[in-house]
Amino acid sequence: MTVRVGVIGAGMIGQDHIRRLTEVVTGATVTAVTDIDAERAAEVAARVGATALPTGTDLIDSPVVDAVLVTSWGPTHAEHVLNAVAAGKPVFCEKPLATSAEDCLRVVEAERAHGRRLVQVGFMRRFDAGYRQMKEVITAGGIGTPLIVHCAHRNPTVPEAYTSRMAAQDTAVHEIDVLRWLLDDEIVSAQVVTPRATSKRFAHLKDPQIMYFETAGGVRVDLEVFVNCQYGYDIQCETVGEDGLVRLPDPAAVGVRAAGRHGTAVQQDWKGRFVDAFDTEFREWIASVEAAVEPTGPSAWDGYAATVITDAAVRSLDSGGAVVTVDMKPRPALYGGTA
Amino acid sequence: MTVRVGVIGAGMIGQDHIRRLTEVVTGATVTAVTDIDAERAAEVAARVGATALPTGTDLIDSPVVDAVLVTSWGPTHAEHVLNAVAAGKPVFCEKPLATSAEDCLRVVEAERAHGRRLVQVGFMRRFDAGYRQMKEVITAGGIGTPLIVHCAHRNPTVPEAYTSRMAAQDTAVHEIDVLRWLLDDEIVSAQVVTPRATSKRFAHLKDPQIMYFETAGGVRVDLEVFVNCQYGYDIQCETVGEDGLVRLPDPAAVGVRAAGRHGTAVQQDWKGRFVDAFDTEFREWIASVEAAVEPTGPSAWDGYAATVITDAAVRSLDSGGAVVTVDMKPRPALYGGTA
Amino acid sequence: MTVRVGVIGAGMIGQDHIRRLTEVVTGATVTAVTDIDAERAAEVAARVGATALPTGTDLIDSPVVDAVLVTSWGPTHAEHVLNAVAAGKPVFCEKPLATSAEDCLRVVEAERAHGRRLVQVGFMRRFDAGYRQMKEVITAGGIGTPLIVHCAHRNPTVPEAYTSRMAAQDTAVHEIDVLRWLLDDEIVSAQVVTPRATSKRFAHLKDPQIMYFETAGGVRVDLEVFVNCQYGYDIQCETVGEDGLVRLPDPAAVGVRAAGRHGTAVQQDWKGRFVDAFDTEFREWIASVEAAVEPTGPSAWDGYAATVITDAAVRSLDSGGAVVTVDMKPRPALYGGTA
Amino acid sequence: MTVRVGVIGAGMIGQDHIRRLTEVVTGATVTAVTDIDAERAAEVAARVGATALPTGTDLIDSPVVDAVLVTSWGPTHAEHVLNAVAAGKPVFCEKPLATSAEDCLRVVEAERAHGRRLVQVGFMRRFDAGYRQMKEVITAGGIGTPLIVHCAHRNPTVPEAYTSRMAAQDTAVHEIDVLRWLLDDEIVSAQVVTPRATSKRFAHLKDPQIMYFETAGGVRVDLEVFVNCQYGYDIQCETVGEDGLVRLPDPAAVGVRAAGRHGTAVQQDWKGRFVDAFDTEFREWIASVEAAVEPTGPSAWDGYAATVITDAAVRSLDSGGAVVTVDMKPRPALYGGTA
Repeated sequence: MTVRVGVIGAGMIGQDHIRRLTEVVTGATVTAVTDIDAERAAEVAARVGATALPTGTDLIDSPVVDAVLVTSWGPTHAEHVLNAVAAGKPVFCEKPLATSAEDCLRVVEAERAHGRRLVQVGFMRRFDAGYRQMKEVITAGGIGTPLIVHCAHRNPTVPEAYTSRMAAQDTAVHEIDVLRWLLDDEIVSAQVVTPRATSKRFAHLKDPQIMYFETAGGVRVDLEVFVNCQYGYDIQCETVGEDGLVRLPDPAAVGVRAAGRHGTAVQQDWKGRFVDAFDTEFREWIASVEAAVEPTGPSAWDGYAATVITDAAVRSLDSGGAVVTVDMKPRPALYGGTA
Repeated sequence: MTVRVGVIGAGMIGQDHIRRLTEVVTGATVTAVTDIDAERAAEVAARVGATALPTGTDLIDSPVVDAVLVTSWGPTHAEHVLNAVAAGKPVFCEKPLATSAEDCLRVVEAERAHGRRLVQVGFMRRFDAGYRQMKEVITAGGIGTPLIVHCAHRNPTVPEAYTSRMAAQDTAVHEIDVLRWLLDDEIVSAQVVTPRATSKRFAHLKDPQIMYFETAGGVRVDLEVFVNCQYGYDIQCETVGEDGLVRLPDPAAVGVRAAGRHGTAVQQDWKGRFVDAFDTEFREWIASVEAAVEPTGPSAWDGYAATVITDAAVRSLDSGGAVVTVDMKPRPALYGGTA
Repeated sequence: MTVRVGVIGAGMIGQDHIRRLTEVVTGATVTAVTDIDAERAAEVAARVGATALPTGTDLIDSPVVDAVLVTSWGPTHAEHVLNAVAAGKPVFCEKPLATSAEDCLRVVEAERAHGRRLVQVGFMRRFDAGYRQMKEVITAGGIGTPLIVHCAHRNPTVPEAYTSRMAAQDTAVHEIDVLRWLLDDEIVSAQVVTPRATSKRFAHLKDPQIMYFETAGGVRVDLEVFVNCQYGYDIQCETVGEDGLVRLPDPAAVGVRAAGRHGTAVQQDWKGRFVDAFDTEFREWIASVEAAVEPTGPSAWDGYAATVITDAAVRSLDSGGAVVTVDMKPRPALYGGTA
Repeated sequence: MTVRVGVIGAGMIGQDHIRRLTEVVTGATVTAVTDIDAERAAEVAARVGATALPTGTDLIDSPVVDAVLVTSWGPTHAEHVLNAVAAGKPVFCEKPLATSAEDCLRVVEAERAHGRRLVQVGFMRRFDAGYRQMKEVITAGGIGTPLIVHCAHRNPTVPEAYTSRMAAQDTAVHEIDVLRWLLDDEIVSAQVVTPRATSKRFAHLKDPQIMYFETAGGVRVDLEVFVNCQYGYDIQCETVGEDGLVRLPDPAAVGVRAAGRHGTAVQQDWKGRFVDAFDTEFREWIASVEAAVEPTGPSAWDGYAATVITDAAVRSLDSGGAVVTVDMKPRPALYGGTA
């Protein structure tokens, strides 16, 4: 009854998910671990009583592994996922599904050939209680047909290694996924413009950036990405419809009146902000594996779409702000499309 | 067409109201000023082109005075108001109407004999937009029959001259008046209890105090009076009814996110908090004088009631916390009663 | 490594906790179940692969039971807990610990004789994120020394079986426990007064009730208990200190603007409001059992104190509103006291 | 000492300002009125004891007129303002200053030739308490250098006569003015894009529209204009700076909990939302006239700038969403520029 998970990639994220599968989520056990650093794999595996295996292939093929979790370096994701699909095993792949649209498509094609969804991609916002409430309000007609979405994604600071393109690839990609799901609509164009840059960032970085998206249905989205906003980790989303609007709440926090101010603390990192979403994401994934049903989370197609849209945003950024059309293939029937 | 106002008492409050009548409220002009300090009267009068007169009686009898504003020392209020009533002139008296219930009753009796309301007492909360919205919600049945009211009245600090009894007489008296009006009900008992005193006050002062009131209709009120709360001037009021509750808003203020906090400034004094209420109070009073109709603000009876209830609260404080029954005369027909 | 839990009482609460231990909390397994209704015990046990046992004694003595969860009928709690202590097994007892102060004291004495804490009582508010933030703020000196607490505990409706005394025994008892913990102070007197009753309740019920508590340190608490407030399940708590105040947040919920209103949904029951608190409560309890350390949650002494204070509140209610002194024994050293 | 105001245009807005000057603002009297409809002029004049005059020229030249208020039909504004400047009289002109940039420039040139500011244009947002607080926070460095502004301007509905261009000309023009003032920066480009149109508008109207502005300093602004949003009149503005952000508050309104919701009423029209701003606007204008100093409100230059920027937005709308550069003349020294 317990799902035996093999983990490929035992870095920071991998270890956090191992902790989650071991200490937070019931019904799962981590039985195998592999990592490019064999010593690290051995150490992490030992901690939870799992076996350290030399390669991803070994792990995927292992008889003690019912389901695979891919948290290795991004460029290796596609290969591991393809191998898992080939082995017919459910696989949870941390974002990105692959580092190129082509590789994402290879996964989509493989899964399609398999005939059944095996892949879930790690976009956790869909599991956040606030976004879920927002989707319920929209679906129930509480604001009428959506027309506009205003978003902001702010981090206190980022390290020097964070590049201008990562604003789309690593940061905005979360909104890209959750917006497609919230609106049940496809993004067809992307544009990135750059306001005056904050002086509080490394010189190479364009920060903040503003991204504009348009959907097939004509919804317009503006998304502020500001990764050196200093004051905190702050996620905002407001969907405006024909009859009203719905807005994501700030996390509940005690209000304090002191020293002439009424105030609440702003969260400082995404881990705190989305801890419950991560837990729910894995709880529901494990439940789907245990029930031997297709996962309900973001699909390989969603992983592909996020990559294609992100690519368009990057091209816009590189071009100095052109509106870039998203060049997406027709959606296969496996993912609710007609192709 | 312009109402000519004579002002008795040219101290801080008097000067502020003169400014209000001169610079803020239309339809009024200050034509006469008197003060126990003749020099001050002369100076203040000169500033606004008014005549300085030697005594309150002179001012009340002056042919250039249509209406009288009493802002002198509390113990002199009753006499000036009685003289104004005797002269048949509208009179606005800053709180208290008189310093004893007996003196308040003398005014009530005089006005009753006169046969028509001439007196308005300066309780400004009834003119605050928030309290008015709250009354509208209650009156419209938005929360059902009121059952409980929770209040807080907080000041940052008070000077050494502020005594424990003033918590009822000077501070809570505003809630006492506004609650009677909000609930359209009479307060029948008062009790004052004292939590551990804050260390941040002069040693003689019991601060904070908590006051409990019960109305004829069975509504229970708790009122926190905390005049050295340090952080700001903060007025809270929440009325709980059979179907819901209504809560006074905090004053609108910009929200700032910075340094890890989301915050808004808390007001620091009553002048800022109630400036609009004061302006509206005088605008409506002047309008009633101009229209030669009875004032709609707090009446001499309300001034009497506030004093009797305040007296009960002070007796409770002095007794160490006994429940003290409010000993109020029957309400005369002039004030909506049956006596 | 997995804690084997035996559950005494397989009613609604028992089943919910079994679900929690099985599906939500890791590190635990339910191995034995007993219930006064043997058929129900068998059925519930079968669902989770546990053994149904005839009696609580059998269960406590069973070699497959590491720790005991008591969720049976209140009057049976004390006996089961005493047996568990006698057996030297950790025991989690849903509130109340016992239905009389005397019986609570028997547990305290037994545990004291045992020399080490084995008992945790099921007051879940201490595990709520909001209350924990509030305690952190207080402990960190963020509001200075506490002086006053304002609380409200509101339910939409209660069934006919809910009696006036249950307002203290079943409802206010949660605030009684969490206030003692928040303030790190003891409640020394209780008083219950009754405003006009809402017309929307069964005729026998006094609702709402207002409870006043005073602590040894001089803190004054007012608690509105209103179990037929109609509009929702609503928990409020505001602690006022020498330098400021801290207020419990409302649960995060999307804001909707539509039809002329800006609004958020109010929760409708305690299960939704405190679901995370319950999960955390059991997660921490299981962790303490696994680590073989004393539990950090509410102790037998806290269970005793809650009962004694609740008794005082009931006596006040019965007396028509007298201030009733809480007659509590000296706190033994095992619970941080000096007795 | 009282400022004698002559009013050109006795329509709805004119009458409202006459009421304001007569009943709300002290220190002013309306002494002359003219209107294209002589009968209406006579009637409105009679109501406040003013003289009805046949033409704007007569009114401007009248010896009983110290200052001129222009509230006539937009296309006539420029001529009246030019005449007032020629007469050396202070003139308050409702927006727009003129219906073309050329005509605005004629006013600017005339005033420049006069050598001293006589003209104030009726953009009232600069007098709103919330925007003023926001400017104070920005000026005090509370959020660091501004980088981005997010705005929304929503009306419940508009009549059929409202055209797509009016979204810029009549609606967004308020944000255009207040943003230039808030940021102390100039708008250099405008772009208007159109999401899917709401079904709840007349078929000819593009609603909502989203406007993007860029300033000389590199600040990016997004402004949602949605004039059939159904739910209320709702003005939002959030300025994001290097260190934090500041957000306009919603108007203070009582919170009501009932029927499962916590809610506040949303205002339904701009008159209620900005009534205090209008009052303050006229109070400060009259004070400047009385003191014979230059007005501190929006200048002829601001009126020109608003028109040029609005024109750019309209060109963008007409073009289907092109980024249109704002073609503004150099700012003359009279208005703080260097030309």
